[in-house]
Amino acid sequence: MSFLWQVRRMWGIITDFFTYETTKSVVVKSWLVGTINRFVQLLIIVYFVGWVFLHEKAYQTKDTGIESAVMTKVKGFGRYNNQVMDVADYVVPQQGTSVFCIITRLIMTHNQTQGLCPQYGKNYRCTHDSDCDKHLRSHLANGIFTGRCLTEDGQCEVEGWCPTENDTVQTEYMEEVENFTIFIKNSVRFALFDITRGNFPRTIDINCMYDPVGNPYCPVFRVGDILRYANESFSAIANKGGQIGIHIRWMCNFDQPVENCKPTFSFTRLDEAFEDNNVSKGYNFRFAKYYRSHDEEEYRTLYKAFGIHFDVMVSGNAGKFDVIPTLINIVAACTSVGLATVLCDIILLNFLRGAERYKAKKFEEVSDTDITAEVQSQSQSLQTIRNEGKISDDSGSFSNGRQRH
Amino acid sequence: MSFLWQVRRMWGIITDFFTYETTKSVVVKSWLVGTINRFVQLLIIVYFVGWVFLHEKAYQTKDTGIESAVMTKVKGFGRYNNQVMDVADYVVPQQGTSVFCIITRLIMTHNQTQGLCPQYGKNYRCTHDSDCDKHLRSHLANGIFTGRCLTEDGQCEVEGWCPTENDTVQTEYMEEVENFTIFIKNSVRFALFDITRGNFPRTIDINCMYDPVGNPYCPVFRVGDILRYANESFSAIANKGGQIGIHIRWMCNFDQPVENCKPTFSFTRLDEAFEDNNVSKGYNFRFAKYYRSHDEEEYRTLYKAFGIHFDVMVSGNAGKFDVIPTLINIVAACTSVGLATVLCDIILLNFLRGAERYKAKKFEEVSDTDITAEVQSQSQSLQTIRNEGKISDDSGSFSNGRQRH
Amino acid sequence: MSFLWQVRRMWGIITDFFTYETTKSVVVKSWLVGTINRFVQLLIIVYFVGWVFLHEKAYQTKDTGIESAVMTKVKGFGRYNNQVMDVADYVVPQQGTSVFCIITRLIMTHNQTQGLCPQYGKNYRCTHDSDCDKHLRSHLANGIFTGRCLTEDGQCEVEGWCPTENDTVQTEYMEEVENFTIFIKNSVRFALFDITRGNFPRTIDINCMYDPVGNPYCPVFRVGDILRYANESFSAIANKGGQIGIHIRWMCNFDQPVENCKPTFSFTRLDEAFEDNNVSKGYNFRFAKYYRSHDEEEYRTLYKAFGIHFDVMVSGNAGKFDVIPTLINIVAACTSVGLATVLCDIILLNFLRGAERYKAKKFEEVSDTDITAEVQSQSQSLQTIRNEGKISDDSGSFSNGRQRH
Repeated sequence: MSFLWQVRRMWGIITDFFTYETTKSVVVKSWLVGTINRFVQLLIIVYFVGWVFLHEKAYQTKDTGIESAVMTKVKGFGRYNNQVMDVADYVVPQQGTSVFCIITRLIMTHNQTQGLCPQYGKNYRCTHDSDCDKHLRSHLANGIFTGRCLTEDGQCEVEGWCPTENDTVQTEYMEEVENFTIFIKNSVRFALFDITRGNFPRTIDINCMYDPVGNPYCPVFRVGDILRYANESFSAIANKGGQIGIHIRWMCNFDQPVENCKPTFSFTRLDEAFEDNNVSKGYNFRFAKYYRSHDEEEYRTLYKAFGIHFDVMVSGNAGKFDVIPTLINIVAACTSVGLATVLCDIILLNFLRGAERYKAKKFEEVSDTDITAEVQSQSQSLQTIRNEGKISDDSGSFSNGRQRH
Repeated sequence: MSFLWQVRRMWGIITDFFTYETTKSVVVKSWLVGTINRFVQLLIIVYFVGWVFLHEKAYQTKDTGIESAVMTKVKGFGRYNNQVMDVADYVVPQQGTSVFCIITRLIMTHNQTQGLCPQYGKNYRCTHDSDCDKHLRSHLANGIFTGRCLTEDGQCEVEGWCPTENDTVQTEYMEEVENFTIFIKNSVRFALFDITRGNFPRTIDINCMYDPVGNPYCPVFRVGDILRYANESFSAIANKGGQIGIHIRWMCNFDQPVENCKPTFSFTRLDEAFEDNNVSKGYNFRFAKYYRSHDEEEYRTLYKAFGIHFDVMVSGNAGKFDVIPTLINIVAACTSVGLATVLCDIILLNFLRGAERYKAKKFEEVSDTDITAEVQSQSQSLQTIRNEGKISDDSGSFSNGRQRH
Repeated sequence: MSFLWQVRRMWGIITDFFTYETTKSVVVKSWLVGTINRFVQLLIIVYFVGWVFLHEKAYQTKDTGIESAVMTKVKGFGRYNNQVMDVADYVVPQQGTSVFCIITRLIMTHNQTQGLCPQYGKNYRCTHDSDCDKHLRSHLANGIFTGRCLTEDGQCEVEGWCPTENDTVQTEYMEEVENFTIFIKNSVRFALFDITRGNFPRTIDINCMYDPVGNPYCPVFRVGDILRYANESFSAIANKGGQIGIHIRWMCNFDQPVENCKPTFSFTRLDEAFEDNNVSKGYNFRFAKYYRSHDEEEYRTLYKAFGIHFDVMVSGNAGKFDVIPTLINIVAACTSVGLATVLCDIILLNFLRGAERYKAKKFEEVSDTDITAEVQSQSQSLQTIRNEGKISDDSGSFSNGRQRH
């Protein structure tokens, strides 16, 4: 008999477990609140369908970790200092990386050797050695000041590569740079989907020229055009130097055919923030070519180069339909529709005519003093409790046999 | 007495504030819906435990902003053009950065000086000056066309570095590159956890050789092996050039000992997208070495270099247990379990036998016409309202003393 | 009449649609649970207001895809090997990019030409040709071993650039590097808000020196200071070489004036992970300068350079008030306040005195056996159902005319 009781108890627990609990609802048949409710629900649905699903494509997995490889090649010839300059002369570095500089203007100082010589420049004029003392620890000249004044030249003496550079000479820039072309080869890989794309199709005619409308997938860009798209004047940037960003954006939707995954190009001046500055405007750097004379002495030509620094930046992401985000977002949308309640409850229970009645309908009250009283009286007589139950508990659902454990 | 009334009112507001409001629920003792309910809840729990917590490790804070430093060093000697080439000869740039190129093949044009000379190439053959007109603005040759035809050579004349390059010569590639080794030193820092890790342990034998199975943490890679892992043939890439990506991935779990945080390596061909293209296959660039003759005239050797461009890319993230994401996700899991209701309600109220009865149990109706009637009759007599209240409001919770404010 | 009936039915569906459904709630007037409820709600509100809104600024749209351009310029003169070295001599590469190296120590091997010569080093000593066999395929020497032992020198013979490098010579480092200055020009663009910022104001005095407290926006950094901020000793890093990261962080809030968007700088040793390693400590690389003698033979000077490799890394994000995230997060906050119920229900229904009574209040039970009985009896007599309805359905809301469809 104890075993039978055990089985029965077990069965009770199991039946109690396989129950379903849902909230008891009050349905308010009011045109005003009903309309507000449906309207807010509509807004929420529109938000989810329009923004979350259609605009943000929440039904897709996204691959944002794009792998990119860029190769560049500049072509064109310019005349500078009675020389014809080719790509090996004016592109630095020469390996065709994504970051490179086309030199537009040069200040050259030939045949520098180690020694002592006067420092060029108005600031370094002197009549006595003491005039040069203030420069002793300066980094701004072209060598280490010896502290002596070379009275013949009227300039302070420096030790270093001599003669010193005179960068106040205003040289011309290389005009042909405007017509140089940059060929950009960009290959991207979306590792998540294992899809590889190139920035131009197999069938492209390599003699094309990029044009945002007419030829948006041509990989050959004219320097002058790039500057025009970035709203910069060639003469200003060629003279002072500057940094230009070439942005390649891949926004791909792999629910569509892979062929539709194509890049878009945009061009900006990167050092725009400093355009109004008086100091350090533009972009320049110094480099040297080293030679040895027949008596084995080293000498060099120092170049102060002004140029257009290009930076090819690749960004992008791709999406593809996936079950998990779709399910999660559908569930989120469904549950969010219920949020209309928050607003409607506020209206219903506070601002509507008869709000008190609605409150009475929605809220059922139970105070711990009632419960305590019940529990105490329960110890007196079972009959009494039942009677009290019927009085205090208006829903009438209170009877021992139907309590939930 | 007015003060006593004020205190009593205050007390009323406070007691009203410290109440607890919970939804009234209907418990449905139905095997079918109960089982569906518990099954859907189980699915949700499995999703949270299995995917969100175990797979996605939602109990961790993630550091995705990995700081990385890469240093590379190539070793090996090759014979090319009767010379022994060492690292200073064939690696560009030489600073051991994460992006570098090993030159595998060279087309050299020695002793170029500025001047006038015939342009090499079939396309530039001519018999009259007019044959050269079409080339006048071309960027594809090795200098600026003068418009003259050099009838002796039968080629158009160019101005620039002479003699011009003949890049149709098929030179051999340097076979020894296959056995060159690349040493990669990669240090990463997870700023959020202030943990720094290197890609090889202190005790590593530097004479090792990377092997994905036998020696996965050895920092020395054979070029031939890298190409094999990327499924590329050495002879093809050495001849035409190409871009290879070396990916280092750090996926670290700092709930485990820090020593377990180790990188994995993978290798891909980066310019894969262009492999089928006819134009612009491979990777090459031009550079020059500049010399001065004893009469101070500049001359140069132009190199067209084909090479393997390596790009070491580091990515990764790390996670560590944190209270806030754990709490948030536990709460999300708990509340999501309640979502089973959405599905079960649909079944219960529409497809189950006796759906109408369940509806009647779940929904309690109140229409604004009833409420309006009540409010109007209220103005007539308080007694009447109470009676009406008892009739229209079946829950019986409606009595002035128990209304909620 | 059929038409009238149709209109009436239509009207019924419409009125049913414009209803508002809200949950029926039980209000528990218990000090204990009420206080717990309000306290948990307070915690949730504090979390949302303090963490989500104030700390995480959830009311903003964020732009994390920062576009950055860096330009660097090193200044300073050092004495090395009886030469005065300037920026063109000691900075590699010279273009002023974000990654550059200042050479602090050099091991020079002058006048190398192609040929045969003894390999320097203790490991390569020999007395017979057979002693050199083990080196035949080695990458660690300075050329290709011929397999011969040069008995006069007692060293194995190599083919390559001769004489071979002796890198065991301990040369001095260039002490002046500590006083060199690095000028950093960083321009960032937040594309989403179309705002461009530079790392120093227009009015900056370019002769300033960076100091984290006194002059935090000065773009000129002393090398010695950078090493001090990174807790590294200059002499150690100048001797062995190393990698230093200069981090520029832009955390901008565009709800404030744009002028407040300023960068912060921090400095770390990037190759810290390898500091304790015995092998491959520090940072060095080899490069060569190529010359031609008057008889046109190529010779070179090989440099083994130790240096400080600097890497300027820019990161950051910006936020600005936006309606959509604000609304979403306010809704999330409001609904999350309801989560207090989860905890309070557990307390109320399990641990509180009179828990069974609360359960009886909260849960209303309906079993499918009752419903089945009802449905069956319904087929017998409509009157009977109504009676049963009154008995089994305590809420009394059950009457055909008021059922919800």
